[in-house]
Amino acid sequence: IRTGKTTKKALTFGKRGMGLEEEINLANDYYLANHLAVIHKKPTPITIVKVDYPARSAAKITEAYFKQASTTDYNGVYQGRYLDFDAKETKNKTSFPLKNFHEHQIVHLASILSQHGVGFVIIKFTSLDETYLYPAQYLIAQWQKLKGKQSISYHEIVRDSYVVPNSLNPSLDYLKAVDQYFEHLN
Amino acid sequence: IRTGKTTKKALTFGKRGMGLEEEINLANDYYLANHLAVIHKKPTPITIVKVDYPARSAAKITEAYFKQASTTDYNGVYQGRYLDFDAKETKNKTSFPLKNFHEHQIVHLASILSQHGVGFVIIKFTSLDETYLYPAQYLIAQWQKLKGKQSISYHEIVRDSYVVPNSLNPSLDYLKAVDQYFEHLN
Ligand SMILES: [Mg+2]
Ligand SMILES: [Mg+2]
Repeated sequence: IRTGKTTKKALTFGKRGMGLEEEINLANDYYLANHLAVIHKKPTPITIVKVDYPARSAAKITEAYFKQASTTDYNGVYQGRYLDFDAKETKNKTSFPLKNFHEHQIVHLASILSQHGVGFVIIKFTSLDETYLYPAQYLIAQWQKLKGKQSISYHEIVRDSYVVPNSLNPSLDYLKAVDQYFEHLN
Repeated sequence: IRTGKTTKKALTFGKRGMGLEEEINLANDYYLANHLAVIHKKPTPITIVKVDYPARSAAKITEAYFKQASTTDYNGVYQGRYLDFDAKETKNKTSFPLKNFHEHQIVHLASILSQHGVGFVIIKFTSLDETYLYPAQYLIAQWQKLKGKQSISYHEIVRDSYVVPNSLNPSLDYLKAVDQYFEHLN
């Protein structure tokens, strides 16, 4: 939805999380080019219904629908460790609403942890211009406590998270927060 | 391309690797359900050009094109290790043609290895009904030696690979070959 021509509605649809995802994508490009990590955004899952094969040109999809993602947005490898995470933005200043997650994303992150993968969410409070790496085990615990409803307070997120520092290149150097998290894990 | 209605041409387009990929997808479902590993096929990358938003119904993609994948088909986590691999079939009995790979897949696998991830290809010789886990470092070495042209001999693949055993459930229990490979790595 973020490529090519879009209608006004398409832009609205794709707006939430857009700035943050772009920053993460740029960070991933930087990490890949500098041999620091291999982390990619998963393609948007699509259900394809109809494909045309015009003579002498590329196959053209003429009917398809967006499918709900069953996992998270990003995964990859960093220093031998499997990373798996989602990116979420909120304009709220005092809390993060759990409705930003789907249950299958929580289940997916729990599976990742049980395989000793590193799962987390990158949460950006856009009004505060603050970004945090929030480890999946806290998110899962809050989800269970609040039954997927209500919000996690800003205070709790800050308490349990690692700060993602603003920097120049990349502008969102989230591996710095991952390093802090690894130090804590070891 | 493997969902919904397809034309004859679509079937032809999607045929190569189809049986093997289906077997791997079923194995992944089994591994996930039994808490053995979390491995998913990445969605097919698509460039979306036009989206319709009919009132009261789901957004409908009316123009989109297949994009060449820049990585491999599968990745995930198994016992704390990052796995990244592609699935390839051949009808050949004596060799595996390197034209089955794109250079960016080789580059991607090399990046994975440099981050201490576990990269490989699952190669199925369909005429022989034999399937192998072929570690990425051998593939990369052959690619460099043969400059991306010609073929790797069946003999060399068998020599450097781990056998993927046929079994009942899942029918292609490739984690068995991964276990063998891990033993060798440790
Ligand atoms: Mg997201
Ligand atoms: Mg393949």
